[in-house]
Amino acid sequence: MSKEITSRKQDYSQWYNDLVIKGSLADYSAVRGCMIIKPYGFSLWEKMQGQLDRMFKETGHENAYFPLFIPKSFFSKEASHVEGFAKECAIVTHYRLKNDPVNGGVMVDPDAKLEEELIVRPTSETIIWNTYKTWIQSYRDLPLLINQWANVVRWEMRTRLFLRTTEFLWQEGHTAHATSEEAIAETMQMLSVYADFAEDYMALPVIKGVKTASERFAGSVDTYCIEALMQDGKALQAGTSHFLGQNFAKAFDVKFSDKDNKLDYVWGTSWGVTTRLVGALVMAHSDDEGLVLPPKIAPLQVVIIPIYKGAEKKDLLDAKGKEFTQQLKAAGISVKYDDNDNARPGWKFAEYEMKGVPVRLALGLRDLENNTVEVARRDTKEKLTMGAGGIAEKIGKLLDDIQQQMYSKALAYRNQHITKADGWDEFEKLLDEKGGFISAHWDGTSETEEAIKEKTKATIRCIPLNNPREDGKCILTGKQSTQRVLFARAY
Amino acid sequence: MSKEITSRKQDYSQWYNDLVIKGSLADYSAVRGCMIIKPYGFSLWEKMQGQLDRMFKETGHENAYFPLFIPKSFFSKEASHVEGFAKECAIVTHYRLKNDPVNGGVMVDPDAKLEEELIVRPTSETIIWNTYKTWIQSYRDLPLLINQWANVVRWEMRTRLFLRTTEFLWQEGHTAHATSEEAIAETMQMLSVYADFAEDYMALPVIKGVKTASERFAGSVDTYCIEALMQDGKALQAGTSHFLGQNFAKAFDVKFSDKDNKLDYVWGTSWGVTTRLVGALVMAHSDDEGLVLPPKIAPLQVVIIPIYKGAEKKDLLDAKGKEFTQQLKAAGISVKYDDNDNARPGWKFAEYEMKGVPVRLALGLRDLENNTVEVARRDTKEKLTMGAGGIAEKIGKLLDDIQQQMYSKALAYRNQHITKADGWDEFEKLLDEKGGFISAHWDGTSETEEAIKEKTKATIRCIPLNNPREDGKCILTGKQSTQRVLFARAY
Repeated sequence: MSKEITSRKQDYSQWYNDLVIKGSLADYSAVRGCMIIKPYGFSLWEKMQGQLDRMFKETGHENAYFPLFIPKSFFSKEASHVEGFAKECAIVTHYRLKNDPVNGGVMVDPDAKLEEELIVRPTSETIIWNTYKTWIQSYRDLPLLINQWANVVRWEMRTRLFLRTTEFLWQEGHTAHATSEEAIAETMQMLSVYADFAEDYMALPVIKGVKTASERFAGSVDTYCIEALMQDGKALQAGTSHFLGQNFAKAFDVKFSDKDNKLDYVWGTSWGVTTRLVGALVMAHSDDEGLVLPPKIAPLQVVIIPIYKGAEKKDLLDAKGKEFTQQLKAAGISVKYDDNDNARPGWKFAEYEMKGVPVRLALGLRDLENNTVEVARRDTKEKLTMGAGGIAEKIGKLLDDIQQQMYSKALAYRNQHITKADGWDEFEKLLDEKGGFISAHWDGTSETEEAIKEKTKATIRCIPLNNPREDGKCILTGKQSTQRVLFARAY
Repeated sequence: MSKEITSRKQDYSQWYNDLVIKGSLADYSAVRGCMIIKPYGFSLWEKMQGQLDRMFKETGHENAYFPLFIPKSFFSKEASHVEGFAKECAIVTHYRLKNDPVNGGVMVDPDAKLEEELIVRPTSETIIWNTYKTWIQSYRDLPLLINQWANVVRWEMRTRLFLRTTEFLWQEGHTAHATSEEAIAETMQMLSVYADFAEDYMALPVIKGVKTASERFAGSVDTYCIEALMQDGKALQAGTSHFLGQNFAKAFDVKFSDKDNKLDYVWGTSWGVTTRLVGALVMAHSDDEGLVLPPKIAPLQVVIIPIYKGAEKKDLLDAKGKEFTQQLKAAGISVKYDDNDNARPGWKFAEYEMKGVPVRLALGLRDLENNTVEVARRDTKEKLTMGAGGIAEKIGKLLDDIQQQMYSKALAYRNQHITKADGWDEFEKLLDEKGGFISAHWDGTSETEEAIKEKTKATIRCIPLNNPREDGKCILTGKQSTQRVLFARAY
């Protein structure tokens, strides 16, 4: 075929990179750790963004935009935020270039040094809560339900396309509430929005849970997350929702007067998902021939390819192809009739397989005679010949079926990869040989968590919501435990 | 009423600031020159973005995303780009903070100095053309039609909300073509897209023209622009489209082989509009009571307010209000039924006037009896009582009429403010007393242009497209001239 992809079996990591690069999703850039999101990759993000944005608005949130830069001193205001948050940030120290008289080109103008350095936002709690102080006076100003779509920068040492990049795109919700209960309800609501989005649109089953203390977002009281499983058995955190308590309100002095005119600090949440979701989508479903995309996220759902030799009767195929295109479009299906003469059908087949287009229709002269069309689905590679009557309805149903079946397949794989371990050897063996989530007892201390991580590279992904209580002994220390938690090696 | 706005007559500049701040469009931030775009202001930008994005895609463009940071050395590669472009940029020199052992808080880690400084993008030609080098080999890769929605930073000394801020949001199109003709056609096409958008959606008449050499974008062969007029008689550049020739292709060595396998440099364009369009929208149409928004951009087109005393018969009003809401929504009109008990009708009227909602429906008990509703349009403040039958169709027509009339009004004002001047005294007098565009002869030299600017603060806004030839004498030097150009004081 046109582009060689490393197989998953041979080298999973290289397979992923091949898909991203050769599938035209992204490219490396001249800036260390920063990627270029190419049009096809960006169209995936746009589809995700569009749907998430609708879900945020349906739950009462509005978009706004806060500055890219945060004064350095802001980071010191919330003690655990600065302690816990990685200090690897991009720091702006100067505001002017000048011509370099010695070496030519330009140099930083030493006279243009900032009095206080500015940090390129790694996340925006500090600058947003500093603003909320002026926006919130009374209970009438609450709840304040704001989301921002933005770029953020965290100076990562080891980066991977989409999964971990120095600059990435995300959304960050930042809400303020009059009571702890309301803020917790918001935290849980947004966790559910993320889970519904992942499962219903990305066809990606996720486990909802809460992080352990050491994996909590710096400055939060509780961090909730959705955890997904990739095809190599590694977990991937796909979204987080934080209950901030009154921590940022206290750090930035954000108080409100309630109905009885009593002053109290405001309660907060924050929640976000990032462009790493594109990486998760690729890793969860794709195969050795290329991307496999769920119809609800695929930028192009159906491609129609005419099969012919020479120009003879090409106009008949074109007429039929365009008729199908009209019918599918009218049914709200995104479709392209590819009659490009410069590429042969076989090359086109491979190209659209690589790009993960869910359904391919091939239309030959015999199909015209028989009033049929050949339908190939990308996920299972099944082919069948279909009568052309009522094609829009049939293809609509097929797309629904693909969406559903991709989810079921991923769910079955995920469920087969949640394994209980009750002894240390079993635990290590499972990690090395089977992968996936290991459900095991843990004594509840950060020291043990850290020790397990050092020995195995596995972390506690989460304590699932509504986790059943069960007496047991910690996998490492043998101490008393009251519940199993989910361990995994993770992206 | 609830919020005091300075009148335009009293202080136009303060009037604008009052609208932006009290109309909840934006807020100042803790970072010098950076603004916060509040939800209502952001919803205006979203409406503009949505429509522009559709127009870009209809003309064959795709979105992508390039890094925020640009290596310093890139700016030296295109000689006139670095010469002409303002060197006021945000410069990242370090990538880590650490705890400050002396003063507490955090400090920049001196060990984490970058080898090469990174510039926060003021515009992305350099990093994009550096990428195009690897994306373009053959004529088959052309045209390359890419757009990016992004934030950019230019370290402005004097800033104004929306109109000129250190960080702003924009889109930047960057295209590559096989021939000069194609690139010029693209430049002109995007200028027309901008003009159509401004006129058809923002109800903002614009003049299409070309900039003089001294006002050209650094690195371009020609800069085209659309120029609008604000209510104080000052001009505002609302969008630019640049023909880059082969300048960036040569600077970044971007060549392609044509059908005959001959190598040549690629031809380029770039084009952009920014969040300053929100400022233009506010300035062009609003009045002393608040915003006046064209229906096609208004986030909320119709508000329905029930008028009642006590709770008696409130449910009847509610039923009717919700019925109207359903009917209008079904017709694709955005509408809100405001039955909030905590605010009185008069307060609501003032609030929605401030926010520029194009149509207000007031619904009282007498209206129920008569099957009528009181309709007030925001732009002219006209009120009339309308029969409730077929309300969706009537309001739809009214919104169209408002859109059209706002454009006509702005166009009449603009046309009344294009004045010919043939002598220097007349020129200065017009600038001081009438404002607007002054159509005058100019000798074609940058020196004269600069001298006029120093004397009057007026600049040449553009040489209109299809400008008629006319012999005359330069307004300042008396030298020969072959055409009039448009001068104005500008934002």
